[in-house]
Amino acid sequence: MRLLRIGQPGGERPVVEVDGVHYDAGGVVEDFGLGFWAEGPAALAEAVASGALPRVDVEGQRVGAALPRGGALICIGMNYAAHAAESGSAPPERPIVFLKSPATLAGPDDEVTIPRGSTKTDWEVELGVVIGQEATNLGEDDDPLAHVAGYVLANDLSERTFQLEESGGQWSKGKCCRGFLPLGPYVATPDEVDATSLRLRSWVNGEPRQDSSTADLVFSVAELVRDLSQYMTLEPGDLVLTGTPEGVALSGRFPYLAPGDVVELEIDGLGRQRQTYRGA
Amino acid sequence: MRLLRIGQPGGERPVVEVDGVHYDAGGVVEDFGLGFWAEGPAALAEAVASGALPRVDVEGQRVGAALPRGGALICIGMNYAAHAAESGSAPPERPIVFLKSPATLAGPDDEVTIPRGSTKTDWEVELGVVIGQEATNLGEDDDPLAHVAGYVLANDLSERTFQLEESGGQWSKGKCCRGFLPLGPYVATPDEVDATSLRLRSWVNGEPRQDSSTADLVFSVAELVRDLSQYMTLEPGDLVLTGTPEGVALSGRFPYLAPGDVVELEIDGLGRQRQTYRGA
Repeated sequence: MRLLRIGQPGGERPVVEVDGVHYDAGGVVEDFGLGFWAEGPAALAEAVASGALPRVDVEGQRVGAALPRGGALICIGMNYAAHAAESGSAPPERPIVFLKSPATLAGPDDEVTIPRGSTKTDWEVELGVVIGQEATNLGEDDDPLAHVAGYVLANDLSERTFQLEESGGQWSKGKCCRGFLPLGPYVATPDEVDATSLRLRSWVNGEPRQDSSTADLVFSVAELVRDLSQYMTLEPGDLVLTGTPEGVALSGRFPYLAPGDVVELEIDGLGRQRQTYRGA
Repeated sequence: MRLLRIGQPGGERPVVEVDGVHYDAGGVVEDFGLGFWAEGPAALAEAVASGALPRVDVEGQRVGAALPRGGALICIGMNYAAHAAESGSAPPERPIVFLKSPATLAGPDDEVTIPRGSTKTDWEVELGVVIGQEATNLGEDDDPLAHVAGYVLANDLSERTFQLEESGGQWSKGKCCRGFLPLGPYVATPDEVDATSLRLRSWVNGEPRQDSSTADLVFSVAELVRDLSQYMTLEPGDLVLTGTPEGVALSGRFPYLAPGDVVELEIDGLGRQRQTYRGA
């Protein structure tokens, strides 16, 4: 089952896709907000199976951010060894955690504004994990994946000067420009994908940039959920971005983004994003 | 005018206080959420003045977090020179920015759970700034304070092992335990306080810990709002915590918090908090 949000910014309606057919979920759930993720997916699957939802044609309509605002937007840094190396770092011994702000959320194909003064706007394709069941202090006998409601494609956009040179070392300063988290096109329930081995790729103007697999994660999804739960309470609707693989501009191998550039990102089974970049 | 939220967690009602009298604002606004802060305060003041709001007795009722979830929870680090020194750092050349997660929000007098495994839970009294008007790339001719809707007392609780020793350098890991942001008791509109010179204090079990003034901020409220607006779009309902002065446990001068401890915090004109701490 795939969950997506269709419509103009602020007016998105919840839609569910099963076997390539789209259904309007607006009669059953208001939105895919915090109150939805614990019990909502099962109820929605039942509604689809019972034929209770009307079909809907989403062709040509805007796809919104796969999640509305409200949950924590948790990011993991340096979680692919080769990306840590291209950033000048060793792989971390424990997950590195920072946050993005709510105003970063954007649709997967929305135009992105390069912030005023930016010379180092950089792409980062990432696997996102949506929390379904509250998780606190998970132990070795707990199954972290039982707390996961789904997976989603994300672009964890970064302004490297803001993040690394003007920040005093705290990365969020370069991670929170408006629209710096294109998310979607949809959240896929766990039965749809094998999150331990997903190919994830990005392109700039059609040229390949990143091409790796979640099999190369330093800390797996299960390890991240267990580890994070020692430090915070993960709640239904929270998003965990699992980090980006090598192939970003920070490596020095590629130029940073400029107005007119087109970035595309894809994760097998989680769809594709396409963003055009413009100046402020 | 003071804005507060009264009632049990998740069921708080908006209340407005003028000249010591409380009025039920629930008939005019749903909550003090994101949609409220741009136009809401003026409309509410008018409703009070016109006598449209019923009086309400808040005596003995729980005070909720002064803001509901939804906005960015932006924190500024090392923004008092003496606190930077007690933390082993020089004052920053630019504001240091990190974020707290939505689940940190709590009422000012709610019991606080010391996280499992914590040995270094630490208090931080701070002046919070609530954004009223969107702010992006404010220039030298813009007035940052025109974008401020009010001020609020906050405790930016921190777990120092999580923040500094197990984090890979990113502080949010020790800032996001559930309930780690007691906020309130109320948001005061800017006419109520002179934010450039507010005494802020904290106590543990009745013994003084912090006692400083916002006059000692490295970066003033105006400077922070202008600076942040270069890196992100500040939106109505966002919260900016301006940093804590010296006198926290991280200094080595005081023990960290233990079950049974009582922390009190106060800022002149912004009220007082009182939290009892318990083990997980």
